[in-house]
Amino acid sequence: MSRWEPDGRRRLQEAALALFAERGFESTTAKQIAERAGLTERTFFRHFGDKREVLFGNEDAVTEALVSAVASAPQACAPLDSVAAGLQAAADHMQPRRESLRRHAAIIAAHPELQERELIKQASMSAALAGALRGRGVAEPTAKLAAEVSIAVMRVAFQRWLEDADDRDLPQLVREALDQIEVFAAR
Amino acid sequence: MSRWEPDGRRRLQEAALALFAERGFESTTAKQIAERAGLTERTFFRHFGDKREVLFGNEDAVTEALVSAVASAPQACAPLDSVAAGLQAAADHMQPRRESLRRHAAIIAAHPELQERELIKQASMSAALAGALRGRGVAEPTAKLAAEVSIAVMRVAFQRWLEDADDRDLPQLVREALDQIEVFAAR
Repeated sequence: MSRWEPDGRRRLQEAALALFAERGFESTTAKQIAERAGLTERTFFRHFGDKREVLFGNEDAVTEALVSAVASAPQACAPLDSVAAGLQAAADHMQPRRESLRRHAAIIAAHPELQERELIKQASMSAALAGALRGRGVAEPTAKLAAEVSIAVMRVAFQRWLEDADDRDLPQLVREALDQIEVFAAR
Repeated sequence: MSRWEPDGRRRLQEAALALFAERGFESTTAKQIAERAGLTERTFFRHFGDKREVLFGNEDAVTEALVSAVASAPQACAPLDSVAAGLQAAADHMQPRRESLRRHAAIIAAHPELQERELIKQASMSAALAGALRGRGVAEPTAKLAAEVSIAVMRVAFQRWLEDADDRDLPQLVREALDQIEVFAAR
């Protein structure tokens, strides 16, 4: 086994998703995940702090994509447009990972203790987005409200994407959900 | 001590909030809560399944107020207007309880394991609201999206209400947050 494993992280994540689905989250150990991936336990702990982090470790990258797209949108953009740019960037980041995100969602649905962690993750993504909007000069409480609404949009679009039999793209579903906000807000 | 305690439930909730703030949630027992309220442990368990339920047991009534106001809004109302009626009803329900809700929020903020429960409560309120909207003929995914956005509005207004030095009313803050949605959605 080579000590240099360029795709070790991804292999560990794949192995973990397979084992969690087969045996349950609680019954799976870091050692078993490493073995399934053909790697050592030591390599596992170079990539992840614990088996929970294997499930949630990609989320920082999604939040980062979201926040930096909002921050770099043209200053003339309305808050909704800068948010749209951010959600598109986050969606682009997730689009290639649909199959693994589907398995991820199935594991979370089967484990209440992970659902709680999932909700906390969304709350922290919302806080990061509100910070990015404040950085663009959006005042409170608009920034916080816009962030909460945007995360709700993302959550609904994401859910549709995972369940969608027609395999539509997440960026497209995000655009549709944003349009729904306009429809809903117009009396 | 009378066996008939018409305000036993409220007294137990007051006692629990005081003890959780003094000793922490984990260190407080149902027996201590009952004693502080001048009631028996048996009376405690007539009102609540466990000490966690003392904190979250009022939420069903808020959800009920929300859902029934949405369901009974005039059929001609746009989704946003029926939601506004629902959020106003929920806000009216909470308005008289600001001081106890402030203490409730402080305890939740100090206990991560309760924050998770709080987030799950919000998710279930959102699901109930989406159901009420579907009952009015609002199609998916609009119903779910409108519900998620509405709960976000309520969460932001609620937070402002708890922190507000000017003691503005929650129904007023909810109206302002709903107006912000329209501002945010208009590019």
